[in-house]
Amino acid sequence: MGPTLGELGERGFIAELRRAVPHGNLMGDDSAVIPPLACPVVTTDSFFEGRHFHRWWAPPEVLGRRLLEATVSDLAAMGAEPAWLLAAVSLEPSMELDWLLAFYRGLASRRGTVIAGGETVRGPGFGLTLTAIGEGTEPGTLLRRSALRPGDRLWTGGPVGRSLDAPKYLEECGGLTGKDLDPVRDAVTAERLEQLRAFLTPSAQVELGQRLREEGVECAIDISDGLFSEARHLGEESGLDVVLKIDGSVFLPSVRERPLEAAAAGEDFLLLFGADEGRDFRDMGCLPVGRAEEGGTGMLTVILNGTEVPVRTIGYDHMEVD
Amino acid sequence: MGPTLGELGERGFIAELRRAVPHGNLMGDDSAVIPPLACPVVTTDSFFEGRHFHRWWAPPEVLGRRLLEATVSDLAAMGAEPAWLLAAVSLEPSMELDWLLAFYRGLASRRGTVIAGGETVRGPGFGLTLTAIGEGTEPGTLLRRSALRPGDRLWTGGPVGRSLDAPKYLEECGGLTGKDLDPVRDAVTAERLEQLRAFLTPSAQVELGQRLREEGVECAIDISDGLFSEARHLGEESGLDVVLKIDGSVFLPSVRERPLEAAAAGEDFLLLFGADEGRDFRDMGCLPVGRAEEGGTGMLTVILNGTEVPVRTIGYDHMEVD
Repeated sequence: MGPTLGELGERGFIAELRRAVPHGNLMGDDSAVIPPLACPVVTTDSFFEGRHFHRWWAPPEVLGRRLLEATVSDLAAMGAEPAWLLAAVSLEPSMELDWLLAFYRGLASRRGTVIAGGETVRGPGFGLTLTAIGEGTEPGTLLRRSALRPGDRLWTGGPVGRSLDAPKYLEECGGLTGKDLDPVRDAVTAERLEQLRAFLTPSAQVELGQRLREEGVECAIDISDGLFSEARHLGEESGLDVVLKIDGSVFLPSVRERPLEAAAAGEDFLLLFGADEGRDFRDMGCLPVGRAEEGGTGMLTVILNGTEVPVRTIGYDHMEVD
Repeated sequence: MGPTLGELGERGFIAELRRAVPHGNLMGDDSAVIPPLACPVVTTDSFFEGRHFHRWWAPPEVLGRRLLEATVSDLAAMGAEPAWLLAAVSLEPSMELDWLLAFYRGLASRRGTVIAGGETVRGPGFGLTLTAIGEGTEPGTLLRRSALRPGDRLWTGGPVGRSLDAPKYLEECGGLTGKDLDPVRDAVTAERLEQLRAFLTPSAQVELGQRLREEGVECAIDISDGLFSEARHLGEESGLDVVLKIDGSVFLPSVRERPLEAAAAGEDFLLLFGADEGRDFRDMGCLPVGRAEEGGTGMLTVILNGTEVPVRTIGYDHMEVD
């Protein structure tokens, strides 16, 4: 067991961090100078332990990488390429250096994305805010939420539902551990284990976003707040109605019995995009999930296995009272 | 009394925010597209209620502006011009909309700085991380911590000490309120009231940083962690020893009796810079505080009123155990 942050002090920790994360201008100057970008695209995301993740879920490098990918997913959704990451981390003195260095290695694990600057403070528990700065190449060609057109078909970047009840399943099996992300206790089915591995190791769809942009697609979002919620967002921002036509094939095997819950659960970090009716994206691993219609009210209709169903829960509201 | 966030929901809050903060691409797309910058300079800062500020300290617009200035101060210290601000805010459902909109108006109050993107989550209490993106114009001419040279005289951007015991004085007088920032209870002297007003309404020294840069100054830092701590930083990063020669004239009137504590208290958001011995910056409101010497050990010597004094506390360590 290595030293804790309280034993090392802030300066000692930062010195260790500079050694452990070699690519990064980590707190050398007051600010970090980065090379100019032709079309900067920026996004920021906050995560707090206990609410957005738990330390016992997985090894620290896996957790760091997961939060990185969640943040980068917002750049992917616009077709931008991630370049720089700023990490503002709130720490507790009791935290262990070795754990944190591995966590930072996870934050710095994406090729092409460099950590710059950063901030460490002692806060109310462990949490972090990541700001990702990306390159969008040509301003006019970025993917937008508001660019859906009547008749567009809607697609997801892959099967949905990795987060449905994932925290509960992780609790039952004691978290995933080791290189192969095996459960601590043998208390999950093979299907759920697959889901948990997908939940803990998402990969932001950066290449898909860029390829869509290059192929003339104009409208996308990432479904981090749930398929239903984000489909409604597209409709609202574009002034159209959206009809989702889904069945079990849209979902991971472990959640197929509960599609409405899975589609509302969020944290999938897949793209949801709209494109001309004639286009087909199945060879890129994408799945058709519905279409956009003239409207203007931003109404969402969900047809499940051929039958229209009422959708009560339409996504995660950060401000909902428990 | 207006609605609370719990009553409004996240979507309702964001809609209100978009109306209240007109200059800002607030959560329209997954990320915000910003115009290209020739020399981007970036920094990030976290603030948590209860640790870094209290809501009862001052009106919400004053608090928001204070956190903005604290963040922008890191750009000022490099001679960069603030352009974009990203706010990641952790909220509680019980918070009132009107209070928060005024707080955001404070965050958006600096001319030339536009709020872009952003994030709201429900977190462990009220807190925020601000990421500021600025323009540095010419990469080679930015102010650096490591650019101090032997023989350089050290200057502060003004009198030091606004934060010494400020939270305690605010508690005694119940916080400052109204347009003139008057104490709620009449329990502070005129000198302390001046100090508290300075503490709550700092202004990042952006113009000073740019002017120094234009005049060929190469070395600066902001003294947000205290004069002693930051002077030592300059020495360490530049491989020099630093001798601070100070007396009461370097401090605000209310803290002149306790210069060692005031110089360690931090949160001053003034620049500390080094320049050729022959230069004089008094006409810009700056005060000479010492000089840099050949060394290499990054040693800090403090001479107070002509006598060398031992310096035990050398600044705020975020990881110090209470």
